[in-house]
Amino acid sequence: MGKTTKRERLLVIGGDAAGMSAASQARRRRGADELEILVVERGHHASYSACGIPYYVGGVVDDLGKLVARTPAEFRDRDIDLRLRNEAVEIDPAGGRVRVRDVDGGGERWEHYDHLMIATGAEPVRPRLPGADAEGVHGVQILDDGVAIRRAVGEAGARRAVVVGGGYIGLEMAEAMVMRGLEVSLVDLAEQPMRTLDPDMGALVADALRGVGVKLYLGEPVEGFDTSPDGRVAAVRTGSRTLPADLVVLGLGVRPATALAEAAGIEVGSAGGIVTDRRMRTRTERVWAAGDCVQTRHLVSGLPVAIPLGTHANKQGRVAGINLGGGYATFPGVVGTAVSKICDVEVARTGLNEREAAAAGFETLSVTVRSTTRAGYHPGATEMRTKLVVERRSGRLLGGQIVGEANAAKRVDGLAIALWNGMTAEEMTGLDLGYAPPFSPVWDPVLIAARKAADAVEADMRAHPG
Amino acid sequence: MGKTTKRERLLVIGGDAAGMSAASQARRRRGADELEILVVERGHHASYSACGIPYYVGGVVDDLGKLVARTPAEFRDRDIDLRLRNEAVEIDPAGGRVRVRDVDGGGERWEHYDHLMIATGAEPVRPRLPGADAEGVHGVQILDDGVAIRRAVGEAGARRAVVVGGGYIGLEMAEAMVMRGLEVSLVDLAEQPMRTLDPDMGALVADALRGVGVKLYLGEPVEGFDTSPDGRVAAVRTGSRTLPADLVVLGLGVRPATALAEAAGIEVGSAGGIVTDRRMRTRTERVWAAGDCVQTRHLVSGLPVAIPLGTHANKQGRVAGINLGGGYATFPGVVGTAVSKICDVEVARTGLNEREAAAAGFETLSVTVRSTTRAGYHPGATEMRTKLVVERRSGRLLGGQIVGEANAAKRVDGLAIALWNGMTAEEMTGLDLGYAPPFSPVWDPVLIAARKAADAVEADMRAHPG
Repeated sequence: MGKTTKRERLLVIGGDAAGMSAASQARRRRGADELEILVVERGHHASYSACGIPYYVGGVVDDLGKLVARTPAEFRDRDIDLRLRNEAVEIDPAGGRVRVRDVDGGGERWEHYDHLMIATGAEPVRPRLPGADAEGVHGVQILDDGVAIRRAVGEAGARRAVVVGGGYIGLEMAEAMVMRGLEVSLVDLAEQPMRTLDPDMGALVADALRGVGVKLYLGEPVEGFDTSPDGRVAAVRTGSRTLPADLVVLGLGVRPATALAEAAGIEVGSAGGIVTDRRMRTRTERVWAAGDCVQTRHLVSGLPVAIPLGTHANKQGRVAGINLGGGYATFPGVVGTAVSKICDVEVARTGLNEREAAAAGFETLSVTVRSTTRAGYHPGATEMRTKLVVERRSGRLLGGQIVGEANAAKRVDGLAIALWNGMTAEEMTGLDLGYAPPFSPVWDPVLIAARKAADAVEADMRAHPG
Repeated sequence: MGKTTKRERLLVIGGDAAGMSAASQARRRRGADELEILVVERGHHASYSACGIPYYVGGVVDDLGKLVARTPAEFRDRDIDLRLRNEAVEIDPAGGRVRVRDVDGGGERWEHYDHLMIATGAEPVRPRLPGADAEGVHGVQILDDGVAIRRAVGEAGARRAVVVGGGYIGLEMAEAMVMRGLEVSLVDLAEQPMRTLDPDMGALVADALRGVGVKLYLGEPVEGFDTSPDGRVAAVRTGSRTLPADLVVLGLGVRPATALAEAAGIEVGSAGGIVTDRRMRTRTERVWAAGDCVQTRHLVSGLPVAIPLGTHANKQGRVAGINLGGGYATFPGVVGTAVSKICDVEVARTGLNEREAAAAGFETLSVTVRSTTRAGYHPGATEMRTKLVVERRSGRLLGGQIVGEANAAKRVDGLAIALWNGMTAEEMTGLDLGYAPPFSPVWDPVLIAARKAADAVEADMRAHPG
């Protein structure tokens, strides 16, 4: 009766989206009699939504527990042994084992594996500047960061916050702290916030930030952090000024956390992430990886990219887990879709912006259209801008950007699916999108933009024949 | 100097979406020295949004003028001669002329054409029942209908309304009249409203209607209309009851208005619409057609369909106009996308439902998922249901249906674009859709549904191999 296979052990490093998705999928396909699953996570929480941190800090969500999708007890009920405050400190691929430190107790031990899943996530980029490690300078990566920042803006009574870096998280945190009544400044080396947008679209986001009272210092390098005698951050120094700060939030982005993998000789690629195949296998035997610590393929540029996003981490973890469970699944890559909401402004982008397209060797044409989210006569219609970047001659869609108000941003999904399928602007003009006055003008903004882009391709051919 | 071409004349029958789009596009490409454009429209308005009528009746939009995109004067400024209250009553293709009646003045005249554009739209289906033409029984097709119904529910003081037929317009009108404080009943021969949805999804819409106080009488044929001595409608008789009515709104759908074309020998097809090629040329020389009066190809079933929607009419009109102007454009067909909002409930569908798929010869699998529109912890997250219909074995997406609240329905665009590109459920699981807590759970409902559908295809293969 029963199979005679030896019971194998899957060891997962990292208990957030990618790691727990992999564990859950592997468990669905292989029972506890066949596969033991151990997850080590160095933090206090597993299976949480890091993307929810700005909403917790801003008070939109008050219960930290709501950001946790599943507790360790829930995983235990599924025969997944999740150990919090256990940090993997060394991988020994030849020996098939991982050295694990008990973060609170301090002891270390070796845990063996038959299959290893690396899901170490990403770590905030910290500037190598004096004072960058001072107390009061926060990254935004794990739930513990959210707890610390919320405490700082709440009971600790911070009044002045400086956000360094104008990426999604930086902007969302700026908004959250404005909502809590702080004076918020944002410093960025670039001339615009949100560099994943083209400058013309980024300028709209900058206007929105100023509109809610965020002071923007753009094109200013941060040169250091002043600290008070007790070691707390007191100010941010830029090339042009000193900004007093009770609190600093780093929004310089994150990079794949690959130190552990690199030290074990597991291949890390040109985009800075662990290299995997489309089934999420690394180049090292019996070792898999998924989530923010890996790089993947950009389906438009064809280039490797590391894009830290919970949605990719979940998908990749699921794919790894299905394969680890004996099934077959693949993660084909990404098209670079992202959405964000800064106060009432919705922002979305997908594919390549002009700079990225040029870097990938494309010659492009761009169009931007102003239109409304609903029929102009319908209450609640708001303005939105839609920009498309298409390849010259072929007219192939390369990317799209949207800045608008309610109901604008999610239209990026349509652009992302069009990109995924290699559609041209001309083909897109025929798309059968949902129309009714509460949802769209009779020409959806996506269709208007596609028409303009198709016209631009035709005009370019006439102007530059041959 | 100048071209020596003879000045041609484009005659357009019908001044709404298709006709005016064609006229405008033709004018953009050919100046008034080359092409004269005459449009005859029998109604009081041109270039209006019939889809906006329920919002005008419900008081969401108070100014009728807002439903009119452009006035005759604006068209005159573009050298488009638009004549309201002028009705085409006969087409003479051999003679290249159309007989036009002055609706108010009563005279008739022949207008010649070099190119004829038929954009006669659709006409409400009227039951052939006693009293169906009584005063107080309204179709919902042109702006004048909206004016009449608004007057009836407003100053005329109607208290009890009966809507006959549970399609989009019927439901939107039911909601509009509830908003105006009327007692509203809805009668439908079918067992569910909105037959473009499967019964399980249609039941959710029925619940929403009951929730706002609409009385539903489903599965009941209308047998006639009682009239008062002055000839006004007084009640609707069904097989089971008599419903007193101060006002009846017909929501039985519309059919292509093809009488004029048919009488002239212009081909009408099996779906009841004028047959055109993809450039919108009819089978009769120099005669074009676009909008609700034509049939087109359903890109999933491959079958001819007549789907009356402003968005198709605009696209087809534009295509015809570009071709009439000497350019090249095509209308490839539709995938059957539609969205609607009934009170707080958003409804969307695209592709084929189970019944339609079976009729087209497909064997299908269906999945329905319940999920939220935003991250579960984000305020404003509401529940939505997403249903996918996929082909057995291939897993190809055939259709999708969504019922939910705010921010649910427009996700149908993603399904429509996936359909357009022939994607399978398995391919869709990898799609890079926009994720951030205010916009979506980390697994967008579309992705969850795609996963379930892919699982169902796999399970079906196991259960029914070979």
